[in-house]
Amino acid sequence: MRDRTKGATNKAKKFVPEWIVRYRGEWLIPDLIAGLAVTIIVIPQSLAYALLAGLPPQFGLYASIFPVLVYAVVGSSTTQAVGPVAITSIMTYSVLAPLAPAGTPDYGNLAAALSLLSGIIVLAFGVLRLGFLSHLLSRPVISGFISGSAVLIIVSQLKFILGVRVEGATTWDVLRELTRTALEANPHTIVTGSLALAVLLCTKAWMAKWLRFCGVSYPWALSLSRLSPVAVVVIATVLVAKLDLDHRFHVAVVGSIQSGLASFSFTVPGIGTLRQLTIPAGILALIGMVQNITMAQALAIKRRERFDANKELVGLGFANIVAGVYGGMPVGGGLSRSAINVAAGAQSPLASIVSAGAMLGVVFFGLGWMERLPLAVLAANIVAAALGMIDIKSFRQAWSYDRADALALLGTAFGVLLFGLQWGIALGVGFSLTTILVRASTPHIAVIGRIPGTEHFRNIERHGTETLPGVLFLRIDESLFFGNLAPVEERLNGELEKAPNTHDLVLIMSAVNRVDTTAMEALNDINTDFRSRGIRLHLAEVKGPVQDRLVNSPLWKSLSGAVFLSVNAAFQSLSQDKKPSQP
Amino acid sequence: MRDRTKGATNKAKKFVPEWIVRYRGEWLIPDLIAGLAVTIIVIPQSLAYALLAGLPPQFGLYASIFPVLVYAVVGSSTTQAVGPVAITSIMTYSVLAPLAPAGTPDYGNLAAALSLLSGIIVLAFGVLRLGFLSHLLSRPVISGFISGSAVLIIVSQLKFILGVRVEGATTWDVLRELTRTALEANPHTIVTGSLALAVLLCTKAWMAKWLRFCGVSYPWALSLSRLSPVAVVVIATVLVAKLDLDHRFHVAVVGSIQSGLASFSFTVPGIGTLRQLTIPAGILALIGMVQNITMAQALAIKRRERFDANKELVGLGFANIVAGVYGGMPVGGGLSRSAINVAAGAQSPLASIVSAGAMLGVVFFGLGWMERLPLAVLAANIVAAALGMIDIKSFRQAWSYDRADALALLGTAFGVLLFGLQWGIALGVGFSLTTILVRASTPHIAVIGRIPGTEHFRNIERHGTETLPGVLFLRIDESLFFGNLAPVEERLNGELEKAPNTHDLVLIMSAVNRVDTTAMEALNDINTDFRSRGIRLHLAEVKGPVQDRLVNSPLWKSLSGAVFLSVNAAFQSLSQDKKPSQP
Repeated sequence: MRDRTKGATNKAKKFVPEWIVRYRGEWLIPDLIAGLAVTIIVIPQSLAYALLAGLPPQFGLYASIFPVLVYAVVGSSTTQAVGPVAITSIMTYSVLAPLAPAGTPDYGNLAAALSLLSGIIVLAFGVLRLGFLSHLLSRPVISGFISGSAVLIIVSQLKFILGVRVEGATTWDVLRELTRTALEANPHTIVTGSLALAVLLCTKAWMAKWLRFCGVSYPWALSLSRLSPVAVVVIATVLVAKLDLDHRFHVAVVGSIQSGLASFSFTVPGIGTLRQLTIPAGILALIGMVQNITMAQALAIKRRERFDANKELVGLGFANIVAGVYGGMPVGGGLSRSAINVAAGAQSPLASIVSAGAMLGVVFFGLGWMERLPLAVLAANIVAAALGMIDIKSFRQAWSYDRADALALLGTAFGVLLFGLQWGIALGVGFSLTTILVRASTPHIAVIGRIPGTEHFRNIERHGTETLPGVLFLRIDESLFFGNLAPVEERLNGELEKAPNTHDLVLIMSAVNRVDTTAMEALNDINTDFRSRGIRLHLAEVKGPVQDRLVNSPLWKSLSGAVFLSVNAAFQSLSQDKKPSQP
Repeated sequence: MRDRTKGATNKAKKFVPEWIVRYRGEWLIPDLIAGLAVTIIVIPQSLAYALLAGLPPQFGLYASIFPVLVYAVVGSSTTQAVGPVAITSIMTYSVLAPLAPAGTPDYGNLAAALSLLSGIIVLAFGVLRLGFLSHLLSRPVISGFISGSAVLIIVSQLKFILGVRVEGATTWDVLRELTRTALEANPHTIVTGSLALAVLLCTKAWMAKWLRFCGVSYPWALSLSRLSPVAVVVIATVLVAKLDLDHRFHVAVVGSIQSGLASFSFTVPGIGTLRQLTIPAGILALIGMVQNITMAQALAIKRRERFDANKELVGLGFANIVAGVYGGMPVGGGLSRSAINVAAGAQSPLASIVSAGAMLGVVFFGLGWMERLPLAVLAANIVAAALGMIDIKSFRQAWSYDRADALALLGTAFGVLLFGLQWGIALGVGFSLTTILVRASTPHIAVIGRIPGTEHFRNIERHGTETLPGVLFLRIDESLFFGNLAPVEERLNGELEKAPNTHDLVLIMSAVNRVDTTAMEALNDINTDFRSRGIRLHLAEVKGPVQDRLVNSPLWKSLSGAVFLSVNAAFQSLSQDKKPSQP
């Protein structure tokens, strides 16, 4: 009886998130504070990203309610805060802008469908445990993608800061339109937007430092500096209201917003729409996955928690499905949201639940003041965030460390700028895969000799070494597979031409982690060929997993030479009748 | 003056093939014999492959004249014989059958255009030195492709052996049609074809052995056994003529053939045709490249000649361009042609020139007898060759050596059968690339300990080893790159959970051939994380090329531990204050 009850309890527990079971009383206060802090700070951000996605600003608030609640229950991270983020917002805009005019109900329905679809795809990836696919992108490629997207984001917001009407499908269209309409720009809007941007950039750069200089403690200084976007938005709205900037000087503002959630209803998308949106939704899902997994993993490492990429995808997938059905725009793990959440002391997803509740309150009772919030100030918020996304440091670091990676970064960034987000990311994946293939196809091979008086064997070009006459030691620094056999064979034959008296060739396999079927057969051919030329082929330092396979191969049975455990054993065995030549 | 003359001579020499400059008198007789032998033996083969390609049989002879001459002058191999081959012929048929009825002049023009296009593509690959791209396919995938194609070839020839009319785009259509029309089959044709096939298979299997048993020397036995297809064709033709099988019993024969080359004229293909044929031509070029390079390389190794894949592609490209302009069907390096050429003693491309000349003679003066050659016998020739292409041994070998390669082989073969040649090869390339990625993404990582009393360090699970308390030695058997960081980090954290008292972790990098930017940054993050947990991160046995990059990285500057030249140095340094625990 007791066992059955216990089983039932365990079963029930499976459906209750682990953090609730483990919840500790002392977490309550920090969670409450963090939740409220996040709500206040993300309001301008959420409004701005909705604008970026081409949606009415309040959609950003909706997307910070139900998806956040769902993620709190099913997500994997205890402190990640989901909501509208810059990259998925600009992707939404770039996908939907050609299909419907931004801001219309049709556009809203498409955004919801896109969110739903990408959520289903992410969920499927999580359920099928395909989280590892998010590793198809290297960090330089991701960095290039984000930097390129940031430039796109900035370009897309210039119209709000200039106060002009611009429609254009590509970046170039938008830029051309902007230069054409620049003279019609509204000077009051420009001043409002530029001032806001200047304040945002300055506070971002110096406020925390200045507060610390004034004696404020580090966490407080950081938290206060993060409040500056809220302050800018509030001050700008108050100024617009006081000076009547919207009516007197046509400074564009958010306009009347219906309170509550009633204005939102889900329309089941048609088959045609679904077909049109499937590939963009897949790309959105991929980017969301990469961004989310990267961040959730970083947060988990910081808190010493186990990280399960597939569970994280299930959470993100459900959050987006809910965002599609009731929220209206794709969501992801937000870098700044999560940073605020952690900085404010969040201990569990309860902080997110608190934040979602508070946001629901804002939506019902606190939307009135936003009517006169100038769009140029929201755009300034986006531009300030986007400027922070342009990552020159990663490029410099990649350039000094590995040119190929740096070029992949640049290529992806320019791919995004020239061909759009989708082709940019496709280019990035292409670059990543090509780099692996090209590298694995051009293996490093060293001729090895013994450092006199030791048992150390090194590259004869880097060190003064002794060798055995007629014996060639070659170390192959790469797994052998069909893609790199030609250069390996070429090098082998080249070394034999340089040393035509060679009668023993030792392949040092310490860095060969795998030998595929093609390579095994090629080695077998080489062995046969060498035998007919009177050269014995030896192997040394074959790794366990490689040897396990090779013992069953024709190569093993017909190998003309021996298999040595170490290079030293080979050297001693082959030098028995000979004296080593001096270096 | 003298220098200028010499310069001019050198310049002239650049346009004269090397083998002509180096030609030796004693090569003349073997070259003549080999050339004539090849001509006689490839006549039935050439006719059959033209039939397989859906072209009038004599096109196979044309394709054995001018392309062969061109290859002799610009090709890289001294003994490879080009001409119509089974794989490119079935590919030609599968590409063109949906576009025009086989055997019509339109079909002929398309075949010529396909050959021209694939020649241009191959030539471009050679000139751009992209020969290495032919390594995109692993041997198991090539083997699967050839086996699958062989089955397609056999299915395509059944109609000739049954003597029925069958049209169908896919293998399944053809098979369904065959079962439907089987009752209408011509018994005389079936007998003729089956008898020919039986004789061909028996002579192929046993004739050489039997001749040797009768005391004939090995080379002669082999050469005589290779004549059996010629004998079968001649005998069948004589029988048809004597018994009047074609008129009395409607056994299908080749029919009247116009002597000479006059019947052939090149039509410049239209843009629409070119567009339709570009992708098939590219695939044809890829397959041709792989087959040709593989064979030419094998022949070069046998003759101890340097092999230049790109020069080989230039030769193959020109041969196909000529085949397109004057010859009518794609050509490649033929396995059996080349084998006969080598066996008959060919020393230089002069053998191919002799063979082309002799074939020209046949086309002008020796086509009459072919009028009553039964198609079923040509089909039997093709089926016999195709049966030899089905490669069960490779599958068995791959299965025992590496299941993933064996599955790629099977997948490609079934891809060819179910979806056709083009999708089959695309699947094969996909399998090949996926295998590399999946393997590199799942690295082998071993916890290492010292074998007591030695300086050898081995996997603690495979050997009895001693370890240091609080010190973990991990050997990573794979280059580190963006695709395998997640499993590496997971394993690292897993090992640390198992040994929570660890204060020093040594990564042994002897098998790490590269660390890309993503991996360097991840190691840097791990280093930072470990530092905060009070664990020092050390590196040991970092390879020269890896270290060259890492010294410029942030990881190197902030590494909490040391970089050791050897695992032993690390072990000794870290054990200074401690005693090793007993195994």
